[in-house]
Amino acid sequence: MLNFEHYTPTEIVFGKETEKQVGNLVKKHGGTKVLVHYGSNSAVRSGLLDRVCGYLKDAGVEYVTLGGVVPNPRLSKVYEGIELAKKEKVDFLLAVGGGSTIDSAKAIAYAIADPGLEDVWDLYAGVKEPAACAPVGVILTIAAAGSETSNSSVITKEDGWLKRSVNNDLARPRFAIMNPELTYTLPPYQTASGGVDIMMHTMERYFQQTKPLDITLGMSEALLRNMLKYLPAALENPTDYEARAEIMWCGSLAHIGLMNLGGTRGDWSCHQMEHELGGMFDVAHGAGLAALWATWARYVYKALPERFVTFATNVMGVEPGADDDETINRGIDAFEAFLETVRMPRSLTELGIQPTDEEIKELVWKCSFEGKRTIGGAGVRALNAEDMEAIYRAAY
Amino acid sequence: MLNFEHYTPTEIVFGKETEKQVGNLVKKHGGTKVLVHYGSNSAVRSGLLDRVCGYLKDAGVEYVTLGGVVPNPRLSKVYEGIELAKKEKVDFLLAVGGGSTIDSAKAIAYAIADPGLEDVWDLYAGVKEPAACAPVGVILTIAAAGSETSNSSVITKEDGWLKRSVNNDLARPRFAIMNPELTYTLPPYQTASGGVDIMMHTMERYFQQTKPLDITLGMSEALLRNMLKYLPAALENPTDYEARAEIMWCGSLAHIGLMNLGGTRGDWSCHQMEHELGGMFDVAHGAGLAALWATWARYVYKALPERFVTFATNVMGVEPGADDDETINRGIDAFEAFLETVRMPRSLTELGIQPTDEEIKELVWKCSFEGKRTIGGAGVRALNAEDMEAIYRAAY
Repeated sequence: MLNFEHYTPTEIVFGKETEKQVGNLVKKHGGTKVLVHYGSNSAVRSGLLDRVCGYLKDAGVEYVTLGGVVPNPRLSKVYEGIELAKKEKVDFLLAVGGGSTIDSAKAIAYAIADPGLEDVWDLYAGVKEPAACAPVGVILTIAAAGSETSNSSVITKEDGWLKRSVNNDLARPRFAIMNPELTYTLPPYQTASGGVDIMMHTMERYFQQTKPLDITLGMSEALLRNMLKYLPAALENPTDYEARAEIMWCGSLAHIGLMNLGGTRGDWSCHQMEHELGGMFDVAHGAGLAALWATWARYVYKALPERFVTFATNVMGVEPGADDDETINRGIDAFEAFLETVRMPRSLTELGIQPTDEEIKELVWKCSFEGKRTIGGAGVRALNAEDMEAIYRAAY
Repeated sequence: MLNFEHYTPTEIVFGKETEKQVGNLVKKHGGTKVLVHYGSNSAVRSGLLDRVCGYLKDAGVEYVTLGGVVPNPRLSKVYEGIELAKKEKVDFLLAVGGGSTIDSAKAIAYAIADPGLEDVWDLYAGVKEPAACAPVGVILTIAAAGSETSNSSVITKEDGWLKRSVNNDLARPRFAIMNPELTYTLPPYQTASGGVDIMMHTMERYFQQTKPLDITLGMSEALLRNMLKYLPAALENPTDYEARAEIMWCGSLAHIGLMNLGGTRGDWSCHQMEHELGGMFDVAHGAGLAALWATWARYVYKALPERFVTFATNVMGVEPGADDDETINRGIDAFEAFLETVRMPRSLTELGIQPTDEEIKELVWKCSFEGKRTIGGAGVRALNAEDMEAIYRAAY
């Protein structure tokens, strides 16, 4: 068991109509001029953006708006936000959306808080450490990334389609408004993709050689069982408040830092291999993870059979087989069957992409940092470029 | 399901030798002159207090010390601390101990932060609302109360032996240093009593008419199962780091606010009835809860059979009986059997007290606020004075 630190200062305001409190929350957390950051047109079409701007106005808070954040949020949009925020003397970022919008807001917040930082990409490239971050608030509309309480931000640089992350407590949002009703209109594919992302945030931590606290593993198993129950329920009835609420809160719990305490940060091989898929092919993040996981699991499970056994029995609820191998494979099969019920891909082909040999080489080249790094070493098993290629190919 | 807010800003620093970081943590959170507050002689005898003062000195932080906090911490000690803190211009409270010491520190912190507050007891008597609270830091030496991350403080006024609490986010500690090794020397009775307190913090929330989120219930069950496993392990081998760590982290999780999200604050009847026992007879808090719980459960379970059934099957792991009644009673019996294995009392007599008729009347009189309030109404079932008397008598 490892020592750990755990710091989760985000003020969570959860439930129906909670977005009406946004003006007071911005003021409480020191905002005087807000950049309202959002993504696609759905926030506009649904009327949410207008309502939010109205609440800010009612509370006497000045604001400017910037939309157009896309999934796998782009560095160019971040630069646009930085320029606008500086020009308008913005001191608070309000993200209205999901993980992409929140991550883009965090990137802008890093940039405007540190005049000494010439290019915010330096943080993502790992060349510099964050020194400061302007306050960020969130109105969450997609349950998936957990960025509303997490310390992480992932940005894609168009030049070379590099997708890179920064994890720093400075960027933890000051508040997160979470109204499950705001996710009612999310299309089924996005709902399912977000659900898989939530599960994978838990599983990337659950599968690791260093045994976390038992209570950590027990809570992770409870979270995964909860998702197995409520993700299909939300797909069946998109306005099932209970299901949407369970999924939304699980999304935060999965990524707030609770689910690996006592262990290392986890494996994250699937996330890193998916990041390259997302960067090159612009697939939905959770769907990309779904397409890779079972292949990864079958490739590595012999390095940590005991955890794959408890996953099979305690999470997937399968009957133990004649030996560990059989139990484990039943668990992985059961997870694939679950993916099928929520109409998520179990392979790259089902994901809708068929990378050429050249493209697979490029994916591996990027994911291995030009052959210079392995991934997954803090988790189940370190993977080098050769392993990555084998998994990408087997996931075909 | 109810809307909720969740705010847990305490910076947790968990693991071996973490107390060495105390000087830097005090400075990070703005402390310049510290009142080091502690309880019995064990902190002195073990050398911990000297070490802590040394770490503060090394970090260039000034301090004064005040010991002598007792279980069911007294208002007179709080007054003494306030006088000392004001005289010494203290701006930071450092509690070195368990719940009693932390609660006493919180009371002092309320008083010194609000010059307009003439008598801090007014907060506990419910006459005034807290307006401010000086920063509090914690070095935890007893896993039990969860006060190291919670917003609550419980103080006993000697005049009338009234035990009252204040719950306010202002009092959440800025940091909590949690080194499981510091609990190695805790006597078995205190270890077990603390363990029961941790379980009861979870159970008082678990048993309520308003259904919390399913993930809340699932995490609560995982926490309770973890305590069933690790409390006996810590009693068997007091220097079992893993067991001490599991218990210590469960103590925080149980009371940090996670375990009732989506529901009301819970029942708390046992806590309130035990508070009066603690005030009048000065019994160990967890032991007092142990002595009451099964009697309370048998008295109220028909008002919420479904939750008592899941407690029996999912937590206590009993085989379902022929009907719910049988299942529920098996679960309550199993909990009593667990109490016996950890040598905790299952009745007032086993607790070592045999209140006279007069004393039972006085307990009820105080717990019912002179017959004017019911308890438990937000949980399983409201109890009036007559119910309280029946439970105190049946728990004999």
